Amino acid sequence: MKVIKDSVHDHIAVDGVARALLDTPELQRLRRISQLGTVSLVYPSANHSRFEHSLGVYHLACEALEQLGIEGIQADRIKAAAMVHDVGHGPYSHNVEELIQRRTGRYHDDVHDLLADGEIADVLCDHGLEPDRIADLVAGDGEFGQLVSGELDVDRMDYLVRDAHHTGVPYGAIDHGRLVRELRYVDGQLVLGEGNVQTAESLLVARALMNPTVYSHSVARISKAMLRRATEALLDAGGTDARTLAWMDDAELVVALRECEASHPLVRRLDERRLYKRAIWAEIDDVPGGIIEATHDDLVRFEHEIADRADVPVGHVILDVPSRPSMAESTTRVLVNGEVRQLGHQSPLVDALRSAQYAQWRLGVYSPADERDRVGRAAVDVLGLDIDGPLVSDVRDGLYTTLDHFAE
Amino acid sequence: MKVIKDSVHDHIAVDGVARALLDTPELQRLRRISQLGTVSLVYPSANHSRFEHSLGVYHLACEALEQLGIEGIQADRIKAAAMVHDVGHGPYSHNVEELIQRRTGRYHDDVHDLLADGEIADVLCDHGLEPDRIADLVAGDGEFGQLVSGELDVDRMDYLVRDAHHTGVPYGAIDHGRLVRELRYVDGQLVLGEGNVQTAESLLVARALMNPTVYSHSVARISKAMLRRATEALLDAGGTDARTLAWMDDAELVVALRECEASHPLVRRLDERRLYKRAIWAEIDDVPGGIIEATHDDLVRFEHEIADRADVPVGHVILDVPSRPSMAESTTRVLVNGEVRQLGHQSPLVDALRSAQYAQWRLGVYSPADERDRVGRAAVDVLGLDIDGPLVSDVRDGLYTTLDHFAE
Amino acid sequence: MKVIKDSVHDHIAVDGVARALLDTPELQRLRRISQLGTVSLVYPSANHSRFEHSLGVYHLACEALEQLGIEGIQADRIKAAAMVHDVGHGPYSHNVEELIQRRTGRYHDDVHDLLADGEIADVLCDHGLEPDRIADLVAGDGEFGQLVSGELDVDRMDYLVRDAHHTGVPYGAIDHGRLVRELRYVDGQLVLGEGNVQTAESLLVARALMNPTVYSHSVARISKAMLRRATEALLDAGGTDARTLAWMDDAELVVALRECEASHPLVRRLDERRLYKRAIWAEIDDVPGGIIEATHDDLVRFEHEIADRADVPVGHVILDVPSRPSMAESTTRVLVNGEVRQLGHQSPLVDALRSAQYAQWRLGVYSPADERDRVGRAAVDVLGLDIDGPLVSDVRDGLYTTLDHFAE
Amino acid sequence: MKVIKDSVHDHIAVDGVARALLDTPELQRLRRISQLGTVSLVYPSANHSRFEHSLGVYHLACEALEQLGIEGIQADRIKAAAMVHDVGHGPYSHNVEELIQRRTGRYHDDVHDLLADGEIADVLCDHGLEPDRIADLVAGDGEFGQLVSGELDVDRMDYLVRDAHHTGVPYGAIDHGRLVRELRYVDGQLVLGEGNVQTAESLLVARALMNPTVYSHSVARISKAMLRRATEALLDAGGTDARTLAWMDDAELVVALRECEASHPLVRRLDERRLYKRAIWAEIDDVPGGIIEATHDDLVRFEHEIADRADVPVGHVILDVPSRPSMAESTTRVLVNGEVRQLGHQSPLVDALRSAQYAQWRLGVYSPADERDRVGRAAVDVLGLDIDGPLVSDVRDGLYTTLDHFAE
Repeated sequence: MKVIKDSVHDHIAVDGVARALLDTPELQRLRRISQLGTVSLVYPSANHSRFEHSLGVYHLACEALEQLGIEGIQADRIKAAAMVHDVGHGPYSHNVEELIQRRTGRYHDDVHDLLADGEIADVLCDHGLEPDRIADLVAGDGEFGQLVSGELDVDRMDYLVRDAHHTGVPYGAIDHGRLVRELRYVDGQLVLGEGNVQTAESLLVARALMNPTVYSHSVARISKAMLRRATEALLDAGGTDARTLAWMDDAELVVALRECEASHPLVRRLDERRLYKRAIWAEIDDVPGGIIEATHDDLVRFEHEIADRADVPVGHVILDVPSRPSMAESTTRVLVNGEVRQLGHQSPLVDALRSAQYAQWRLGVYSPADERDRVGRAAVDVLGLDIDGPLVSDVRDGLYTTLDHFAE
Repeated sequence: MKVIKDSVHDHIAVDGVARALLDTPELQRLRRISQLGTVSLVYPSANHSRFEHSLGVYHLACEALEQLGIEGIQADRIKAAAMVHDVGHGPYSHNVEELIQRRTGRYHDDVHDLLADGEIADVLCDHGLEPDRIADLVAGDGEFGQLVSGELDVDRMDYLVRDAHHTGVPYGAIDHGRLVRELRYVDGQLVLGEGNVQTAESLLVARALMNPTVYSHSVARISKAMLRRATEALLDAGGTDARTLAWMDDAELVVALRECEASHPLVRRLDERRLYKRAIWAEIDDVPGGIIEATHDDLVRFEHEIADRADVPVGHVILDVPSRPSMAESTTRVLVNGEVRQLGHQSPLVDALRSAQYAQWRLGVYSPADERDRVGRAAVDVLGLDIDGPLVSDVRDGLYTTLDHFAE
Repeated sequence: MKVIKDSVHDHIAVDGVARALLDTPELQRLRRISQLGTVSLVYPSANHSRFEHSLGVYHLACEALEQLGIEGIQADRIKAAAMVHDVGHGPYSHNVEELIQRRTGRYHDDVHDLLADGEIADVLCDHGLEPDRIADLVAGDGEFGQLVSGELDVDRMDYLVRDAHHTGVPYGAIDHGRLVRELRYVDGQLVLGEGNVQTAESLLVARALMNPTVYSHSVARISKAMLRRATEALLDAGGTDARTLAWMDDAELVVALRECEASHPLVRRLDERRLYKRAIWAEIDDVPGGIIEATHDDLVRFEHEIADRADVPVGHVILDVPSRPSMAESTTRVLVNGEVRQLGHQSPLVDALRSAQYAQWRLGVYSPADERDRVGRAAVDVLGLDIDGPLVSDVRDGLYTTLDHFAE
Repeated sequence: MKVIKDSVHDHIAVDGVARALLDTPELQRLRRISQLGTVSLVYPSANHSRFEHSLGVYHLACEALEQLGIEGIQADRIKAAAMVHDVGHGPYSHNVEELIQRRTGRYHDDVHDLLADGEIADVLCDHGLEPDRIADLVAGDGEFGQLVSGELDVDRMDYLVRDAHHTGVPYGAIDHGRLVRELRYVDGQLVLGEGNVQTAESLLVARALMNPTVYSHSVARISKAMLRRATEALLDAGGTDARTLAWMDDAELVVALRECEASHPLVRRLDERRLYKRAIWAEIDDVPGGIIEATHDDLVRFEHEIADRADVPVGHVILDVPSRPSMAESTTRVLVNGEVRQLGHQSPLVDALRSAQYAQWRLGVYSPADERDRVGRAAVDVLGLDIDGPLVSDVRDGLYTTLDHFAE
């Protein structure tokens, strides 16, 4: 039994298959993948890695298994899945995931191929575990997949607390001890036990507050868009290919971006924190539905049109259109008077948080600071935005102002 | 300048009038008034005092004043008000306040008489401060009273964080540093600066989660009702009078309750944690409106009727009817695009939290465990409750189960 | 299984005999005994109780038992002992213990009589446990008594962390998780496993830093001496007897002190924090050996002589003579290269900390502020002190200055 | 005024020259230099950067300046120095500093050249500050240099607390608030005010406990030695030159090491955590004095001889000889009875901690696991070690065991 010191969960004991998995190159690589990517440009302390998060998820999985009375081979499967659940992440985690997915067809939680070969496969087989079943759990499939990836998964419990710890933003400080203790299986469904409607709400609220404050902070979104754009330029220039990209660590990607002429200017801006600014920051009601549903090719075409109309280089326009808000947690299940109920049917908060998500949704167009006016006006025309007031609508944005020459 | 070590705010520097106030007997008495009264029967670590809370409120007031650029005599007034804002509390804080108010007409934040005489008055006058103006601030009057008692007051900021620290419940962990930094005065109104809709929401959410988990936990409500009832028996038996009661500290009250035959049985139950149980725990929709608006005399009469019908001693029935839910914070003001707006008009969360308050509201009838069935049935009849299901409706109650022979 | 929320250890699960013990009046009484007595006059947040500490000790005992592989009836005995280890404490914990011991012959950890009768005895017998064996464990006897009371006991691990949490002083923040994990039994001795010399040192250092900063802070010593003196006056005036005193809670003692004419002046001073000041604060080398070894009767005679010579009422002189420094932890045992060694033989720190204890030792003589000069000079003569410099030698005293009219 | 959220100090307000400095590429580069280098191979959460540390040092400097009453241009100089004090660090901070120094003659705190040109110089000049004077402060020169680099500097106060926060090891949790408050200047010397001998000791103790647990943990030393050796191979192979190396960030160095054939095997081992093991771990008394004072060239020669004698490739032997222990903090100055005294003369702890340092000192020889016996025996002969017992003397090593295929 090995014991690892963690700044969030204190001591994490690692044994058996989990310990063997930790020593694989695939897991060790996660030491060099930052958990929150460019969010550290907003919150300077947020330098934590996917590796420590994976340890935390494994730790909470062990506690949940003990609570649920799950033992033996089934427990080993879940522990293994918790430990490897993030090995499919590319460099900078979610920042370039969409790009990798578009070019390779693979999301980070599709690890069937990855677990079928290599050292992880060897370790799993040595411990009598079938790689495919572990990959299914990582994908959230089946009764026990809910523990690893679902509305009540230990993944979210760890990242909320860990991201709060490392950013310094208190909103993610959920009571994970209570959440884990109250997990139950009822008819094959993972639910929270009686008297926990509010426990479930507290998890939703934590996400709802961390989202605009941390994960979708405007500066995080801008820098993430710049990184994605630079990486796309690297691929298009033949600096690397998507499959190679997917297995880089953060260091390899950043050096590759610097060495490629096409991506160099953008990555230098990121290195020196000379970020693009918001030319447009538009509410959902002001954006034509067609824009939100547009394909990637459409978006590229729009960017070209905007650049053309604003008379700026095409690389100076980044169009950032989030998908429509959704709130998966509304299906969190809780026992109420002996019946399994969905939180969305039980709690008025769920609707309110969904409304808040709509109110916080923003389409962004970013450009160098001195071109933002021109780009903004061009984007209104090209995208057919219906904006009365200012082009940058700030209502819910920007909890933490950050260091910037061109403060908005 | 004196520096005091505090477990929440670390170092608190105390100077001038605030330091002189701390040395008065009225302030020192607050060391012996518990902040949360009987809540420590649910959360054993919650033994903090009004004294440390008063220091914390003073500390945050100083930070707010610096942020707002308020100096000189006006700052001294507000600092003094922050320091003394709780000297009007009776023993066990809010637990017996309603009783004291009913018998003396005074609430804890009406301190005009109290500041007019005695050592506090001397200290205020020595520092050129008018006691009446300080008492006005404590009551929340005027432009600057909002800082001491209002939707954005430093009182709430301290108690949420402090109660979270001492109970161990994370929900109160607001970002008080940010809240204080974002305070502004616009046209004489205290508001949060631009970009803080979510900051305001986080304050509301913290209260909305702390409320059922801590302040209105069913065991806290039962024990508070028992303490109030015991104290009423003490007064009725002539063991003390309401004015004397109001200036007792916790120790004096608890000893007086033990020494008086009428209150002895109930206080022994509290001492030994042999608490009454819920015979009724009814949702607001199941309770006739007349009951909720009933006078104290009505409630006493109902209790007698229930005891009579259940054939138990009258002291074995406690009827606990909270007032209708309200949500004062909905009028929190925030700057949005340069305009002052009320949070209730800006945030869908406010309505949702109000709905949650309604869903969480419960009328309670408490009795010894072995009589609860009889008492419950009698109460349904006497109060005209319209209950289909179980008499104790648990949907949102009881985040933390606690130690109890007669677990429900 | 019941789960209790604790501000230090988060969730504490309580079951079996431990849960039944919690519901006894003897345990519930500990809710009303403050852990640190008058230390809250120095650190206002330090209002924690023996009850929450007992829960914490029980929690760490459970973790240690799991680590050590101790199960069954032996584990139940140790869990019960951990839970009840402090039921023998009088009001204000250690503050009046010496007085109670002098008059009843009993120290707080001698609980044989106490466990032989009453509800605790019933609970123990119901669970097949012999009260005498539990009392032996509380006294630290036998192989397993070391876990409850010894150099590596879980009592100390909890109180250091808990006192740090509640005072805000960081020095007690030991790594209790590691300490518990590294416990081993070797030849019937409780030791720390290989590679833990420094772990053991860290425990010593925490005590060595918490001692002068918290436990022996001069203001804590003065107020403790005043409380002890007031209580002695109460006993001498027949206000109560020592056996009754031993079972009071804090509230009963403080009210009794207020109601007795002989103790009233001193307890009012404590209530209003108008404390005596140091007339003498003398280093060990300046104090004749005979004084340090003097009997209680001798000390009383010295006080009378000092008062007489200074021409002040005898109650205005308190002589406070600590016993010679000792460092029990020097016998902490650690495995080094497979051998059990005593820390005192292994670590140069032990000698240094012992020297520090000598340097910090102070004899105190306390009196009202305006009589301190007279009292100080009289004490020098009566006690034969050999002081060159100032009568109050401050070298290592008073980490935290506190609020005081008569600041020294 | 900009406010930055920090996980250690909460909110850090940045203004004037400090804010302008933050936007320079030199400061932004520190985001990509890890504070503790390879320590994250022992403590997975320790991924913090020199950038957040620089913000923390700046924050504490501001607090110290306010406490000391230093204002105007002198305060600006010190704030600027605090902010830039680490810009001279190479990649992986101290891990390759010795190597850079050997080849360029420059240590990380010699920033005269660096501040003379470039954007930092521009910013300093814009704010009327002379680069040379700022560089002097960074080097610790002059009365005010002590604040930035000295026994009581704010650098150490930040890193102890920050490293404790991020590793999870509690020992570094000093009371920085008190330390900063007690700073005084007496006759041009920075001292701690009266009554702070123990405060000074607590700082020493924190370092003394963090050192073997974190900074000199054997696995941290092994991995650091491997990184240094790999980097040396990179330089020798012409993969880069020392001046270029000095301005790389962590990403550039690690990619360069992977791309160079000479360094590739070692950096792969680091990437996959297949670390060398200790063949020798010898106490200071067992090592001939000549070895400790040996030149770099001598050490290289010894390594060759050991490899030769053990019949392993020369790259498979790393000799790691720390310099003799010193304890700079012994000259920390504290006011005692009005006189400035050195802590080393005042506190018996200083000698004890120095003895502990000697006891903890270890010479290391590292090699692949399967060659360690051969290498160990060869090293004993070549170095003339006088070892009776095992070649790896573990007395004080390895507080936290870590994940490792070849666990020792």
